[in-house]
Amino acid sequence: MTRSGSRRPTLAAIAQAAGVSLPTASKVLNGKDDVSAETRARVRRLLEEHEYIPVGTRRAAAGQVVIDLVFTALDSPWAVEIIRGVVDSGVQAVVSAMAHRKDWAQTLVRARRAGAVLVTSELSKADLRLLERARLPLVVLDPADLPSPDVPSVGATNWAGGLAATEHLLELGHRRIAVIGGPPGFLCSKARIDGYRTALERAGGTAHPELIRHGDFHHEGGYRAAVELLDLPDPPTAIFAGSDEQALGAIEAARRAGLTVPREVSVVGFDDLPVARWSSPPLTTIRQPLDEMGRLAGRLLADLIAGTPPRSHRIELATELIVRSTTAPPAR
Amino acid sequence: MTRSGSRRPTLAAIAQAAGVSLPTASKVLNGKDDVSAETRARVRRLLEEHEYIPVGTRRAAAGQVVIDLVFTALDSPWAVEIIRGVVDSGVQAVVSAMAHRKDWAQTLVRARRAGAVLVTSELSKADLRLLERARLPLVVLDPADLPSPDVPSVGATNWAGGLAATEHLLELGHRRIAVIGGPPGFLCSKARIDGYRTALERAGGTAHPELIRHGDFHHEGGYRAAVELLDLPDPPTAIFAGSDEQALGAIEAARRAGLTVPREVSVVGFDDLPVARWSSPPLTTIRQPLDEMGRLAGRLLADLIAGTPPRSHRIELATELIVRSTTAPPAR
Repeated sequence: MTRSGSRRPTLAAIAQAAGVSLPTASKVLNGKDDVSAETRARVRRLLEEHEYIPVGTRRAAAGQVVIDLVFTALDSPWAVEIIRGVVDSGVQAVVSAMAHRKDWAQTLVRARRAGAVLVTSELSKADLRLLERARLPLVVLDPADLPSPDVPSVGATNWAGGLAATEHLLELGHRRIAVIGGPPGFLCSKARIDGYRTALERAGGTAHPELIRHGDFHHEGGYRAAVELLDLPDPPTAIFAGSDEQALGAIEAARRAGLTVPREVSVVGFDDLPVARWSSPPLTTIRQPLDEMGRLAGRLLADLIAGTPPRSHRIELATELIVRSTTAPPAR
Repeated sequence: MTRSGSRRPTLAAIAQAAGVSLPTASKVLNGKDDVSAETRARVRRLLEEHEYIPVGTRRAAAGQVVIDLVFTALDSPWAVEIIRGVVDSGVQAVVSAMAHRKDWAQTLVRARRAGAVLVTSELSKADLRLLERARLPLVVLDPADLPSPDVPSVGATNWAGGLAATEHLLELGHRRIAVIGGPPGFLCSKARIDGYRTALERAGGTAHPELIRHGDFHHEGGYRAAVELLDLPDPPTAIFAGSDEQALGAIEAARRAGLTVPREVSVVGFDDLPVARWSSPPLTTIRQPLDEMGRLAGRLLADLIAGTPPRSHRIELATELIVRSTTAPPAR
């Protein structure tokens, strides 16, 4: 296990310490034999002492690195997508959930692994400070509040996703479009709703407060909000549900209200989990590249551990509209 | 990290080696002070030397144990349920997938962790031999071929599940009942189909070969098999789909054929993944306690690592019929 809170030296620094040129140090590193045995031994010893990881083999080296991969809870198919990506990045990930123990941050520090990817929208400032004090290399995936610039984070273009979902419904001819966001405090949810507002405004409309609801990103939240929406005197003809789970909840609410999707009400999800394809009819949704986000988070963390700071402390990967069969022009 | 291929001694063996009685050794272990300092020191040294783990604190000790949790592939919401259970058992699990590298078994041996839970129905004899030779403590979850009695395995009562699903459909009045199994070689699939056959035979019927199909446990396999079944001159009025994913595929095949579930065709799944609740209408299915199976596998492995052999080398947890809204009496 390679553990390092401290920075690893560059090859140039190793060469300097060994009293040789950079090309000579490089030759030793690459096993070339036109270097004296004595020099070779000296450089090798320094490379080993400092646990130098050559740039080219960093991905291979990442395979030796054991990190923690911590979810808020292990309660959604969401998690598999991200785990697959992180595992694919080459790091070895110990998977756990904050929900399993209140003192998860202390436990994480005590485990003394090489670093951690936190997949959470609910990172408290106290927990973050605790982890930063322990100098644990961290990458946060999908944070609610953007952490300090010292902690790199990975997300998706949530605002653009909200815009694309709403524009798709506008293009189909919908004018009364509702949105069901996640918990009001979640930044990713705010961004999706802001994208929705902007799309409506660009089309010359406005967002009616009664058509903006908040769920919990889960099925039940989507179901409840949709029941209320479909029960309005002037119900929406389309719902942008903010997550696939909420979209499936909205579809169930429509079914129970005797409405056919998409003939009588259109529904758009967000995430593009496998369940979006399995829904009957298949779900129109905004794809969030969760596995790619996991892979990026894993690579960023491996780089951090190897002493390479990220080029940007916030990276958002593109969302994409996937049109399937739950959206159609409005009946009325 | 506690690593051990070898058996740990019992407290009785420690007491014997220290030349004291078992109650005396127990007193030292529990910090009682009516033991001489010399005896206490001698017993403590032996406890430490043999890395003795007291039975009562075994779960706490499991928290220190890092194991591998290996899936065939990380491609199904299935995996989250099991990961949650294993994490909940107290072991720390490095999650990986066989699909990510051909030499996964060698990699596992090289990682030299305390043990491994393999979640697979596709364990080759060669890989199993390799792992056994390395004396890596192993527990297999849901194996296709029952491994040798040396390797404990955890599963669900698949046969009883197949029986319960089919009896439910028979009770509703269905007589032309089809089954879509998993890959023909998977033991869990065979057991489910055998349960189906037995239910039909007990009801005085027989299983028609044309109504027995094989999928791949995934959506596409269920969809394809159901398209063929519903296209038969005398199509089934009910389908036992052998997995929730396949059931959702069958429901989509029915929808495309213009048939309403459950009015024109009933569908039963297997697993009871969260998607079963999210399906619209919600899916009638056979619940497989995946999280409990994960928890049990984690505990069995922690015990194995601590030197306690399992009481049984095969444990099956009960399946349960969950009636929701995709089953109803046949229309004809």
